[in-house]
Order: sequence, then C-alpha cells, then structure tokens
Amino acid sequence: MAATPPKKSQNPKKPETLQGLGEFGFIDKLRESLKAKNPSVVLGPGDDAAIFKPTPGHELVFTTDMLVEGRHFDFKWITPWQLGAKTMAVNVSDCAAMGAKPTVAVVSLGVPKDYPVKDLEAFYDGMKSWGESFGAQIVGGDTVGSEKFVVNIALIGEVENGRALRRSGAKAGDALFVTGTVGDSAAGLSALQQPGLKGHEAASLLIKKHLTPVPRFNVGRYLGTKKLASAAIDISDGLSSEIHHLCEESGLGAEIHEEALPLSPSLIQFCQENQLQPLDFALNGGEDYELLFTIGEKDFSKLYSLEGNVRAIGRMKKGMPNVVVRKIDGKTDEYNDFLSYQHFITDNR
Amino acid sequence: MAATPPKKSQNPKKPETLQGLGEFGFIDKLRESLKAKNPSVVLGPGDDAAIFKPTPGHELVFTTDMLVEGRHFDFKWITPWQLGAKTMAVNVSDCAAMGAKPTVAVVSLGVPKDYPVKDLEAFYDGMKSWGESFGAQIVGGDTVGSEKFVVNIALIGEVENGRALRRSGAKAGDALFVTGTVGDSAAGLSALQQPGLKGHEAASLLIKKHLTPVPRFNVGRYLGTKKLASAAIDISDGLSSEIHHLCEESGLGAEIHEEALPLSPSLIQFCQENQLQPLDFALNGGEDYELLFTIGEKDFSKLYSLEGNVRAIGRMKKGMPNVVVRKIDGKTDEYNDFLSYQHFITDNR
Repeated sequence: MAATPPKKSQNPKKPETLQGLGEFGFIDKLRESLKAKNPSVVLGPGDDAAIFKPTPGHELVFTTDMLVEGRHFDFKWITPWQLGAKTMAVNVSDCAAMGAKPTVAVVSLGVPKDYPVKDLEAFYDGMKSWGESFGAQIVGGDTVGSEKFVVNIALIGEVENGRALRRSGAKAGDALFVTGTVGDSAAGLSALQQPGLKGHEAASLLIKKHLTPVPRFNVGRYLGTKKLASAAIDISDGLSSEIHHLCEESGLGAEIHEEALPLSPSLIQFCQENQLQPLDFALNGGEDYELLFTIGEKDFSKLYSLEGNVRAIGRMKKGMPNVVVRKIDGKTDEYNDFLSYQHFITDNR
Repeated sequence: MAATPPKKSQNPKKPETLQGLGEFGFIDKLRESLKAKNPSVVLGPGDDAAIFKPTPGHELVFTTDMLVEGRHFDFKWITPWQLGAKTMAVNVSDCAAMGAKPTVAVVSLGVPKDYPVKDLEAFYDGMKSWGESFGAQIVGGDTVGSEKFVVNIALIGEVENGRALRRSGAKAGDALFVTGTVGDSAAGLSALQQPGLKGHEAASLLIKKHLTPVPRFNVGRYLGTKKLASAAIDISDGLSSEIHHLCEESGLGAEIHEEALPLSPSLIQFCQENQLQPLDFALNGGEDYELLFTIGEKDFSKLYSLEGNVRAIGRMKKGMPNVVVRKIDGKTDEYNDFLSYQHFITDNR
C-alpha cells in the first residue's frame, strides 16, 4: 500500500518535474510499463486512440469518475500511490455494481508543472497495479498542465449479454442487502480532518478504508453472472442517498432497520471514544464503495457463498421514494430527500 | 454555432447556479435530453455505468482528452456552447485519425459552484449536437465541484476488424498528405490573445477555426474503410510535432516542402498585415485537427474523391526521426526535436 520507493535522482536536491521532462518525455517513460498484457488489447498507449477487441456474447459497460485536488482528496494525507489506486477503485466499483468485469481504461491527468516525476510514477503505479488486480488495463490517456491536480479515469467493462445489473429492477418485497460495513470511510475522513479526535487504533483502520477502498468486484460478478440481484448500485454518495437512487429508479420505497446496518468494530469504538453517532456515518457518510442490492426471497439461499460479506438491512416496498428507517428504540424516521453528499451543496469533501 | 438561447429564469437578476440546483438536480435535468437514440446503446445515463452492444466484426478504439480553463481555453472568448462542441471535436478527431466511427462518449465535468446552469446547458448542448453530427452519443458522466472549469470526454469508436489506421505503418517512399489547411487555429489564437493585431476580416475566420474546429471524420473513414493510408495521425500539437510522432512510430524520417504546405488565404492575409510568418503558424502552431497521413504511390489515384481536401506535402524516407524541410529559397532546415506545443514547457496555451 505504500508508495513505490523513489528512483535515485540525478540531483537529489532538485527532483525531476514534469516541466523539466515535458509531456512527451513523461509519456515515453510510462509507455514501456503500460505495455498491453491483456490479449483483447490490440494496441495500447502511444497512438491517437487505443484499439481493443470486445469479447463476443458480451455487452460493454462504460463509466467515468473525476477526482479533483482539494475537493476529493488532499495530498496532506493521501500518497500519490494511494490516490492512483483509489481513482481506479472508484471506477472498478461502478463496474462491479453493473456485474461487469473491468477490461480497459484511459486516464486523463491535469498536473501542476512543479509536480515531481517520481510522485507521478508512484501515482501511475497505484492505478496500474490496482487496476490489474481487477483485470483493468490502462490503454491510453491525456496529460495536461493544470493548477490543481485532477485525474479522470474512463473504464470499460464486459458483462455477459443481458446479465448487467441495473438500479431499476427491484420489486416490492425484495430484500435489501449491503456488502461489508458502512460508515467507515466517512469516519476515517473525519479523523483525518480533525486530528484532535481520539481512538488512534480504530481511527487508523477507518482512515485506511477511506484512503484505499477495495471495490466489491467478486460480489458484483457473482450477482451478475448468476443473475441473482434484481437491482444493484454502489455506495459512493452514502447509504441513504443510494437507497433513494435505487427507490427512484425502481419506482418503489424502502424500509430499513437501523439495528441491521453493518457497522465495523472500529467505527463503533471510534464513535464511543469521541461521542459521535455511528449511524450518522453509516447512513449519511460516503465513499464506502460497498454494493447495495436487492434480491427476491426465493434466491436468498443462493447467497450462502457470500456469507459474512453481505447483510440484509431491509426490504423494498410500494410508495416511491419514501425510505422509512426503523430505529432501535422502535420509532421510525422518514427520509424523503437526499441527505448525503452532493458536491455542490456540501463543500467540505 | 451560437449558444442556445437562455431559458427564462425564475429570478432574472440571479441566474440559477449549480450550487443551488445540486448535482443530482442537474443530472435529472440533463437525462431527458440525453435519452439514447443510437440503437447500440442499451442503457444511457442514470446508472452506475452505461451499457452498449458493440457491432460484430468491429474493433473498438478508445480515446480521451481533457481541457482545463486558463490552459486550453478562456471564457473571455469562447462561449459555453463552442467549448462543448470543441471538446467533442477534439475527441472525434482522434477517432477519425484511427479511421473509426465514434459511437458512445462519457463526459466528466469539474464546475465552479457559481457557474450558471443556463451556461452548463448550453455547454452540454454543444457537446451533444456536435457529437451527434458525427454519430457519438453521450451515455454518462460525472459532475463534480472544482475551482476552475475542467472537462474530460472519453470516446469509443468502431472500426471494421483490421482496418484501424495507426501512426506506425508508414513506409519509406510513401507520400505525406495533409487535409485542409494548417496554421489557422494558432493564428486565430494569436488574434484572440493580442487584440492589437490587424486584419479583422481574416482574423475572424481564423478565430472561428480556433474556436469551432471540424474534425475530419469523413476523410478518416474513407482512408480507414478503404485501407488507403499506411499511417495516420491528427494534428493537435502542430504539424512539425505530428510529423515527428509519425516518423518515430514508423521508424522513418521525412522530407517536406515548405511551398507545398496548404495555407489558407485568411492566414496569408492576416500574416501580411501583421508582418508575421505564416509558416511559423503552419509548422509550429497547434489545434488544427486536420489529418496527416501517408499513402503508397500505387494508391495516389484513389484519393481523387478527396480532391481539394488533401494536399501532398512531402515524402517519408529512411533516417528516423529527422525531418528535413525544403525551404522556398532552396535551402533546407532540419528539425530533430519537437518544436511545437508541449503543455509543460510552453505555458501560454
């Protein structure tokens, strides 16, 4: 997870910058390391576009995500390697939510001219190795000058014809499931932003979840290829917001049970030590990159192989798009609007 | 080419901003207008990823380009509609250089929170209508907050199996051709940056070429489907630089004739009135988005249908990557390194 060790510089006092090397010089440096390994890639980086052969019998999914310095990340706490890995993870997570297998990616980068080349190499190494662990090959990109660091990945994935998971397929009565635990990433971000918060051990695990999320590739593929989930979405903006998306797209409402929400021991400990509410993070946090999906009752038993990785948190019901949260004290809350992270309304993430 | 007429606002004194509307509100606004028309699009915007069906018998090309405010464009002189159209054109041009037909695109946008929604709608309209004229459908994207306006398009195109044009196929003796005229866009940029320059009528044509370039889609498809060109590249960084790329990738050198370079009457007039050298713009300018391609002698006659749109400017020869320019006075210049636009070396574009 650490950044790759920096290469020995010609002049140790003055690290090589992109301005010194030039865009083409940097691209040449990269090209060798990005040589295509995936047999479907006909032509990798270095031309006007990459060329690849889609697998017969498959549909393609196409997604993109942009991360902007100061808005989505801060180099005060994320290493270049981690940022590369996270940018890739965010895109792979979208593929996973469609039940698809990532195949090829292009990367656009806006980089300040004094950005050290060794950091850029570490960044690429993070993207590349994180991508390759999920089958995604970087086949091209664009590198431009910019005041702030900004990165965009566009990712293509493949899914067997007709097997893609959508947000819109849920039926009333379907159970709502979530993978892993929720709220950790948002709590990790709080710990980074407010170093005064206590609970160092718990915090360090939460911070790790925030900085290097692992997309739910295997669960997504399992749900897609077996056509188990009636609907699926990844949790990037926060659980309550994603439930709302799923409800709106499926034309339904939902009822979820507070006590069923999967909370990590780290989150509980961190919140206890700091008098914070874990459910606030779980419901209204963001960047968990877990999957939220719905499944019909007859298929419950087929989830056995995912045991320990998924948890039922509620049920879909009529009455779009109301989300009723049954609280631990027996009362209910109703959420009729988005509560979570919206880039233009909340400014601090 | 003008921006779409702004919609009537609720409060004419305070235009609606993205901050007020929210990311999801804006996406909902867009979604209706981006409904898929292309039959290969299975699922358009609104899910974790778009879904599309590739055409059997085709390979896919995949390209991306990022444009950053203050670096690639300035809202002082480009309208939101034009910027949308240009961003799409830049990507379609890469597809054209591969001989491919654009199909689906995803758009990432970093937008300042006080950016007016009506301008954003005009921007999308430019991308969408310019894209659709070349067969490209916007199927998804990501919209985030950012200090400066930054846009990234990733575009997929289709080309018949084995017909993609590459930079690497040129042979010694092949003629070098270029479409349209070169240098106009760079001269147009000069006219925008230095309003003191004379020649208003000529300048306005050059400026138009800079602001709304038209990618060479038809020529690219003709050269690709008929497998006429041995190599091709689009001219985004400037002619001399692109010739160098083509030479390096093909392992050859080139000799070009100054007097053969296609210069527009507007460029010549503008340069005369301002004591500037048109060849500087033609060789070392940028953003022409014309195609540079090579073709074997036996195939010259097959270019007849492109007559008036293409011009032979020289020939490929051994001796990578030396580019010899035969000057009008009979002398020669040798270019052994890139002269043109590199984002991290030249700052002012």
